Amino acid sequence: MHSARQQTRSGRPGELALIAGIRARAARISNTGVELGIGDDCALLRLRAGEKLAVTTDLSIAGRHFRLDWHAPEAIGHRTLARGLSDLAAMGARPVAAFLSLGLPPELVQNLKARRTWVSRFLDGFLALAEAHRVPLAGGDLAESPVAVADIVVTGAVAHGKALLRSGARPGDLLYVTGSLGGAAQGLVRLDQLARTKSRARAPRLEPPRIPGKLEALLAPHLYPQPRIAQGLWLARRSAATAAIDISDGLSTDLQHLCEESGVSAEVDAAALPVYAGASLEQALHGGEDYELLFTAAPTAQPPRRISGVPITRIGRILRSRRTRPQIVLLTVDGDKPLTPEGWEHFS
Amino acid sequence: MHSARQQTRSGRPGELALIAGIRARAARISNTGVELGIGDDCALLRLRAGEKLAVTTDLSIAGRHFRLDWHAPEAIGHRTLARGLSDLAAMGARPVAAFLSLGLPPELVQNLKARRTWVSRFLDGFLALAEAHRVPLAGGDLAESPVAVADIVVTGAVAHGKALLRSGARPGDLLYVTGSLGGAAQGLVRLDQLARTKSRARAPRLEPPRIPGKLEALLAPHLYPQPRIAQGLWLARRSAATAAIDISDGLSTDLQHLCEESGVSAEVDAAALPVYAGASLEQALHGGEDYELLFTAAPTAQPPRRISGVPITRIGRILRSRRTRPQIVLLTVDGDKPLTPEGWEHFS
Repeated sequence: MHSARQQTRSGRPGELALIAGIRARAARISNTGVELGIGDDCALLRLRAGEKLAVTTDLSIAGRHFRLDWHAPEAIGHRTLARGLSDLAAMGARPVAAFLSLGLPPELVQNLKARRTWVSRFLDGFLALAEAHRVPLAGGDLAESPVAVADIVVTGAVAHGKALLRSGARPGDLLYVTGSLGGAAQGLVRLDQLARTKSRARAPRLEPPRIPGKLEALLAPHLYPQPRIAQGLWLARRSAATAAIDISDGLSTDLQHLCEESGVSAEVDAAALPVYAGASLEQALHGGEDYELLFTAAPTAQPPRRISGVPITRIGRILRSRRTRPQIVLLTVDGDKPLTPEGWEHFS
Repeated sequence: MHSARQQTRSGRPGELALIAGIRARAARISNTGVELGIGDDCALLRLRAGEKLAVTTDLSIAGRHFRLDWHAPEAIGHRTLARGLSDLAAMGARPVAAFLSLGLPPELVQNLKARRTWVSRFLDGFLALAEAHRVPLAGGDLAESPVAVADIVVTGAVAHGKALLRSGARPGDLLYVTGSLGGAAQGLVRLDQLARTKSRARAPRLEPPRIPGKLEALLAPHLYPQPRIAQGLWLARRSAATAAIDISDGLSTDLQHLCEESGVSAEVDAAALPVYAGASLEQALHGGEDYELLFTAAPTAQPPRRISGVPITRIGRILRSRRTRPQIVLLTVDGDKPLTPEGWEHFS
């Protein structure tokens, strides 16, 4: 009886067939934290004694967070999950399970020119990253939508008292970042240029530009950002950081969030910033989507130069909050300047 | 510094101001399961010893699950959360925390004619139901979107071995539903009629029809469905049900899901169905969004006539699955008929 519903009159796979396909693919990744995955009214998760569950959600919308004519479906799938995993990393949590709600225009579940469907390629990118971090897809929802939307929920486990919060920074703490900054912003500029080239004028709506081999490395920080799960776990397990946040909206904006939640000020040394090769200082300060970790540590903590192969760079320090000076000061060779948040804000 | 970003140049509140407003309102509901709510990279939840966490997500999209010109914002907020809570009810879980991702066109966060914003009235409906079930809003996301979308995540706690699964029904079990069926479907038909009346032709896009007092009770099952949390908890704690599912897609479709996950067949007695006063048998069989619980129990279990004031009705029984008969049979005065799923399916 069920098989009669696998293909609908329109010749497209219906919702139930799509879900059955996703369920089969998702079953390949397992995690002891998932007792019951896709297929019931809810998933069931279990924690070890003394653990808390960290939960984060991130909404991605076509035309806002990605473009069907710029981004390959695999990159959109990867970026969707990376946004959620990066929030877990910033709490120092171990991934347990992901949940994905997809709203898609019918053309994205159809077979175009007998090649694989858009949604299938989206899942390729999503599940490759899920497998790398051993986080099973344990549930979600699927609906027809005039615009493509993907809401990602990621859950993780963190031992009691070990979570990295935004609110723990204290005056005197030193300020660090993982990896490098501005890579995603410069990658986006290059992708924009690539998409605007003459030869693209007649390209179909769902055909992102082919990426020349020499540009692949420069576009990778934008298309395939790597969430810093291992680095967050390292910091949390050793209680090595006093506060942490992921840089999703840009260093200037996310450092302000951290300062506000901690009730402190900060100074950033421009010369110390690990600017991505090919990016500008402005991109490193304000460009979003780097998904690096920004964290504070007591002066005695002395984090290593690398954690799991990723460089750790000291970029400034935390100060007492004073009305007479800006919340964040940028130290430059031309003198001190207030660093105002210029990251992305919706509805602005 | 933060105050400078409360109002943007467009005169609309920006994302950060909106989140600050939601955070203040959400803080009024508390739950011991929420250790950390809105304001960090993740929320942190805690469980009691031996409990599992149930997680469900439901995506609602304007034009598919609701209409801005049909549904008051309060009803859309209520229905969004009710969808998630109903999945928890079907697992027999106690609500712990909700997470809400909202994608909204800018006009829905603006003040129309100096009255309250659409998003504020949406939250009125959402938070009233949240308060009734003591489920705090512990996180979420907010983004600009060309079409209004709301993805709800609800988490709940269930004691080890007590979860109501879809897969536990056994031949010989009896089949029950809570409340009545078809109420939401008949309410939707009446709302459609109301929205099509002549006087509405010139109504603005965001103005749902005024509901006459005499129609309020008939529209309530569609506009303000009540998730059966208390009934699900009662069944789970007493181990009184062998399987359960919520009727979101229609009795015929959801009974099929239950039968497939349990590997059984079922028969439904048409004369026994608790049809909502004013609804048809067809609406009771196939109409979605009733959010009642459909459950099975051993013949010896004998559930009470009411649980927390809501009637419990026996409507059929579970049979061994056989190739020679349809998976679900409807017993009627005109003889037995196969009952085929005719509920809603996306992409069909």
